Amino acid sequence: MSEKIAGRMRNITPFYVMELLQKARELERQGRDIVHMEIGEPDFATPDPVLRASIEILHQGQIKYTPAEGLPELRKKISRYYQRQYSVDLDPRRIFITPGASGAFLLALGVSLNPGDEVLMTDPCYPCNSNFINFFDGIARLVPVAAGSNYQLNAQLLDQHWSKRTRAALITSPANPTGSVIAAEDLQQSIDLVCGRGGLFYSDEIYHGLVYGSKAASALQFSDQVFVINSFSKYFAMTGWRIGWLTAPEAYCDAVERLAQNIFISTPSLAQYAALEAFSEENLQELENRAAEFARRGDFLYGELCRLGFGIARKPQGAFYIYADCSKFTGDSYQFALDLLQQQGVAVTPGKDFGNNKPHRYIRFAYTTAMQRLEEGVRRLESFIAG
Amino acid sequence: MSEKIAGRMRNITPFYVMELLQKARELERQGRDIVHMEIGEPDFATPDPVLRASIEILHQGQIKYTPAEGLPELRKKISRYYQRQYSVDLDPRRIFITPGASGAFLLALGVSLNPGDEVLMTDPCYPCNSNFINFFDGIARLVPVAAGSNYQLNAQLLDQHWSKRTRAALITSPANPTGSVIAAEDLQQSIDLVCGRGGLFYSDEIYHGLVYGSKAASALQFSDQVFVINSFSKYFAMTGWRIGWLTAPEAYCDAVERLAQNIFISTPSLAQYAALEAFSEENLQELENRAAEFARRGDFLYGELCRLGFGIARKPQGAFYIYADCSKFTGDSYQFALDLLQQQGVAVTPGKDFGNNKPHRYIRFAYTTAMQRLEEGVRRLESFIAG
Repeated sequence: MSEKIAGRMRNITPFYVMELLQKARELERQGRDIVHMEIGEPDFATPDPVLRASIEILHQGQIKYTPAEGLPELRKKISRYYQRQYSVDLDPRRIFITPGASGAFLLALGVSLNPGDEVLMTDPCYPCNSNFINFFDGIARLVPVAAGSNYQLNAQLLDQHWSKRTRAALITSPANPTGSVIAAEDLQQSIDLVCGRGGLFYSDEIYHGLVYGSKAASALQFSDQVFVINSFSKYFAMTGWRIGWLTAPEAYCDAVERLAQNIFISTPSLAQYAALEAFSEENLQELENRAAEFARRGDFLYGELCRLGFGIARKPQGAFYIYADCSKFTGDSYQFALDLLQQQGVAVTPGKDFGNNKPHRYIRFAYTTAMQRLEEGVRRLESFIAG
Repeated sequence: MSEKIAGRMRNITPFYVMELLQKARELERQGRDIVHMEIGEPDFATPDPVLRASIEILHQGQIKYTPAEGLPELRKKISRYYQRQYSVDLDPRRIFITPGASGAFLLALGVSLNPGDEVLMTDPCYPCNSNFINFFDGIARLVPVAAGSNYQLNAQLLDQHWSKRTRAALITSPANPTGSVIAAEDLQQSIDLVCGRGGLFYSDEIYHGLVYGSKAASALQFSDQVFVINSFSKYFAMTGWRIGWLTAPEAYCDAVERLAQNIFISTPSLAQYAALEAFSEENLQELENRAAEFARRGDFLYGELCRLGFGIARKPQGAFYIYADCSKFTGDSYQFALDLLQQQGVAVTPGKDFGNNKPHRYIRFAYTTAMQRLEEGVRRLESFIAG
């Protein structure tokens, strides 16, 4: 039967961390205390203003389909948010509400990428992003990046790796797993290069808002010919609601709407009504407090990992991850992660989940858990290394 | 720019009814009263037990990602439901919770259909279903069906239309737009034929539960090598929640899970917790009352449309649609629908949304509105025809 599985699945990789997670749960069932530093999901609950609004809507009872492109009021609110955050004028009709950033990727690539098209992206990278390209029988061309380019692509790298088959570039900033933020100038030059060659530019901005010490530029500041993928999952702490958005170039909007009608019908309604409340002053204030707490955790963890001897060539500027070189302690980061979990009850994500760029040297730490748990995690990590 | 739109979009058709819907909304803004008989969504709100459970969960506040394959408790409940409804033993691990039937189609076709593979399905059909096939660069081979086969495929038709490129069959029962239900024997013989040829069998069972005067058989009664797509949207009246499920053959389960991890992360969490309540006795009783009301409406509308001279060769047995031949009144059902809306304020869906099988002769009536509105719609329809 397995020969019947569709060809596209050959290139869609599993998450290796799942195996680890299963092991962690097993240990927890045995009564072990596990410090979770593997989870790419904010520990913060959905903020109260959003929850209260949702309860109100449920009391009204009608949870029906919405237009495929999303609630008009929500598209307007997002447009105003771009004005406020980036001073960008954005026609709400170019904004499509989607089932998470996942839905935004399905639409963006679905309307624009043909089988065999090559997409340049960083290595390390988030595996779902390359798997979306594989899903459409495109080719994810992973470009190894290092501290020299701040773990991001730039015009020089794009030029260097551009081939006859290259059709597009995908930038993720802040990045997963490295937490790096692309400089505004690099972003602008990259867009100019790609658009100048008639290519497609996808900007994954799902960690915007979680940027420390500076601000991330949106691709929309530099061009209206880019696809921008965003989400309510990270900064807005609405993971389980499954809501995000796509901003598409004008010429693609009809196709995006048509595709959304067919493959989604609509994005979850309650999530859309709830998200209307996400932009209230009360909620944004709470989110800023949380971002400050993430920054505090990141500072702490960065300092401690450096102290313990992990290699972190540049301090991450965003998201909630640190991608740390553990080659001082091991030649096999996957085994390191397994042993760390088994011996000390600390769960982390091994580099092999993030591409082919020396993954055996790296571990991703997520600081999506409270400070005192991070402190406990570091204590255990120190014992593990010493042991 | 438009030449950049991906090839797959060429075959993904828009919904023509959208144009009509837009016109209907415009008329409503002008103060006109519109009878809606175009909407493929139950008018009933989410049942109270499900709403109450959701509010309870929101008060607890944590709306996080769930496992990609869905909540284990929900998969178990669905498994027990198959035991109860169809006397089928179904391993919960073969059940995947999805963002609506849409998500189930993405997974089922994503793991099994290769570009160029031909899928046999009925004409008329629901356009999303053929568009899902187009989305994966498959070929939706529409087989014209008529009253003789009860608007369904059967082993004889499948045999007759099977070609070298044929890889699969898709059966929708109860069907949209015809409301026809495939006979258990035909379903079994169709599965035997397709599986006997090493083909794939997709069974779209999203209208199960809304069957009048008999019961629909599930493909799972006859084989464990079929993909079954189902949904909480129709019988369970949970459209806007976006939750459904896929049952996959054992050999595909790993691939389905891997694909779900990558393209969805997870199905909306609150919808999954809410759906746990969908199988309570209190809720199922309410749903049975509603199904009885749909039956009553369907009987009424069928009688009236026959009386007015619409051609309905076989009385529909399920869903909430009547696909009526209006060639006695017009040679162009689309114009008929536009005029009916403009002159009498009755919205219906023209045949051109449902394939290529003489669509100009047909109109789809949905009885997703209260009896007194249906009565009003029929009065207006009578005036329109008389006028």
